[in-house]
Amino acid sequence: MADCMKAAALLRGWDDILVLCHASPDGDTLGSAGALVRGLGALGKRVFFACGDKIDEKYSYLFEGLAPLGREPAHIVSVDVATPSLLGSLEEEYAGRIDLAIDHHSGHTLFARESWVEPDSAANSELIYLLLQELGVSIDKAMADCLYTGISTDTGCFRYANVTPRTHRIAARLLELEADGARINREMHESKSKAQIEAERILMESMAFSCGGKCAMVQVPLSIYERTGVQEGDLEGMAALPRQIKGVLLGVTLKEKENGLVKGSVRSNPPANAREIGESFGGGGHPGAAGFTLPGMTLSQAAEKVEAACREQLLRLGLL
Amino acid sequence: MADCMKAAALLRGWDDILVLCHASPDGDTLGSAGALVRGLGALGKRVFFACGDKIDEKYSYLFEGLAPLGREPAHIVSVDVATPSLLGSLEEEYAGRIDLAIDHHSGHTLFARESWVEPDSAANSELIYLLLQELGVSIDKAMADCLYTGISTDTGCFRYANVTPRTHRIAARLLELEADGARINREMHESKSKAQIEAERILMESMAFSCGGKCAMVQVPLSIYERTGVQEGDLEGMAALPRQIKGVLLGVTLKEKENGLVKGSVRSNPPANAREIGESFGGGGHPGAAGFTLPGMTLSQAAEKVEAACREQLLRLGLL
Repeated sequence: MADCMKAAALLRGWDDILVLCHASPDGDTLGSAGALVRGLGALGKRVFFACGDKIDEKYSYLFEGLAPLGREPAHIVSVDVATPSLLGSLEEEYAGRIDLAIDHHSGHTLFARESWVEPDSAANSELIYLLLQELGVSIDKAMADCLYTGISTDTGCFRYANVTPRTHRIAARLLELEADGARINREMHESKSKAQIEAERILMESMAFSCGGKCAMVQVPLSIYERTGVQEGDLEGMAALPRQIKGVLLGVTLKEKENGLVKGSVRSNPPANAREIGESFGGGGHPGAAGFTLPGMTLSQAAEKVEAACREQLLRLGLL
Repeated sequence: MADCMKAAALLRGWDDILVLCHASPDGDTLGSAGALVRGLGALGKRVFFACGDKIDEKYSYLFEGLAPLGREPAHIVSVDVATPSLLGSLEEEYAGRIDLAIDHHSGHTLFARESWVEPDSAANSELIYLLLQELGVSIDKAMADCLYTGISTDTGCFRYANVTPRTHRIAARLLELEADGARINREMHESKSKAQIEAERILMESMAFSCGGKCAMVQVPLSIYERTGVQEGDLEGMAALPRQIKGVLLGVTLKEKENGLVKGSVRSNPPANAREIGESFGGGGHPGAAGFTLPGMTLSQAAEKVEAACREQLLRLGLL
C-alpha cells in the first residue's frame, strides 16, 4: 500500500495524467479531481479528468477554466473510487488500467497498481490537500475552493462522526488560502429552489416508519420530477432527512430510476451501521452513509427488501 | 476595553462569581456559561450561573452536575449579552451591577464596569476557550462539550460567513479534548420530532415571498403549538429555513407570543444585512442573523412593518 510520499513520488515522475471520478459524482470526488488537476497543472504537467456521469451545474465552479480531456493518457489516477464498478460508464475503458487509486473508503478493493487508502480520513479531499503539500504545490484559491467543497460535502458541513481534528485544521488552512467557505456551504447545503421545497414536502409526508420508529423510509417515484419540476440532482439532500427524526437509527431513501432500477441511500445513527446495509445489497459506503442499486424491481418491492435488512440489523444489535 | 489577559486577571482576583446568560438562551450563551462556571470552579472558586428564561431540555447536559445559585454574588460576569435589556427578567436585579461583560456582538453597548468584546469572533464560546487557556484551566470533556456546543450553534455548524480559521482550530482542539462533536451536532442541528416536521411542513407551506422573491417570510401563529404538539423551543430551527430558498436575501420568521408580542428573527445572505433590520426594531444581532420584539400588534401587522423594512433595505442596496 502506498502512502502520501509514495503517491507524490509517482506523480512527480508522470505526465499526461487522467484523473477519474466516481459515477453519480459528489462534491468530494469532484473536489478531489478539481484540486488534483489544478495542482498537477501548476507543476507543468498535462492533466485532465473524466467522470462517467454528467456533472451537476452546481459543481461547475470546481472545473472552471480547466481543459477537457485532450489526448490518450499515459497514466491514470482515480480519486474517491472504492471499487471499479463505481466508475460507471468509464469502467469498461479504464478499470484495468488505473495506476494509482487515492481513496478513503474502508471497503476499498485495491483494484489499482498502487493504492493510497486512508479510511479514517473524513473526506478524500483531505488526502489531496496532504498530497499537494507533499508535492510542494502552492495551493491557490481555486484549489482551496475545490478541497473545501470536498470536505464540507463529505462531512455534512463538519457535522458527522467522521470529522477529526485534522479535518478542522485543514479547513482552517483552506480558509486562510481564501476558500470561500460561506458561499460554498450556502450552495452545497442551504440553497433550495421552490420546486425542491415542494418536492421535499411531498416526500416527507409520504415517509414511512417501521421497527418501532427506528427505521424511516422515503420513496421517490419518477413521477415527482414531472409533478414538481425538480431535477434529480435537486433531491440529493433528501437522503439526509429521514435520519434527522428523533429516534431514527436507519434512514433510507429509495429513488425509482429508468429501466426498473431502484437506487438506495442509507444514513445511520450509531450503533446502527449504514455500510452493512449498503454492502448487503452489493453497494458500499461509510459506517454513517452508504448507497446501493437494486435492479429489476418496483419501489415497493425494494422497500420491502430494504426494510427487512434494516429490521435484521436492528434485531441483531438487540435494538428491537 | 479589556482584553483576554485583563479579563483573566480580574477573574483570578474574584470569588463568589455569578455568570449571567441572555434571555431566550441559545447554545452559545449557555455553552459560554457552562464552560466558564466549570473552569472557574476547577480553579477552586465558588461560581454559579443564572438565566432569565427557562433553559430548554436539549441544553441540560451543559449544566449537568453544576450547583444552582447559592448565595449573594460578590462579582457578576455576563456572557454573550449585547445590551442589558437582553437579560430579560434578570435586567432589573443585575443590569447595573455587572463587573465584566464578555461578548462578541458588534452592537455591544459597553454596559459593564469592564468589557471584553470581540465582534470578529464567530461565537462567544471562542472567547471563553481563550480565557480558560489564559487562566491555565485544564479543559475537561464537560467544558469542551460546552464550548463546542456554543461554537457549533452560533456558526450553523461551521456553515456561516462568521467562521474564521481560528474557529476551526479551536474546534480541532475541542475534539482532541473529547468534545462529542457528532452527538452535539445531531442534537443541535439534526434531531427533529415528528411534530416538529409536521409543524415545519405547515409553516413552509404558508411562506410568503415579496420583493421579487428576495424576501421570504414565515408567520408562526400561537395555534401551531396546539395543532401539532410542538413546543416553542422546537421551532428555533425554523428561523434558518426561509433564507435557504434560492434567491432569498432576507429570510424572516415572525412568532406570535402571548400578550400581543411578536418575536422576529431575520437571516440574510450578503449583501443584505439582518442586523440592520433587527436594530431598526430595537433588537440586535450579527450581520447574518438578528432578532427583535414587536409589542402590541398582530402577526399580520408585524409582517407588514417588517416587509417594509426589508424592501427599504433592498431598495437602498440597489437590489430592487
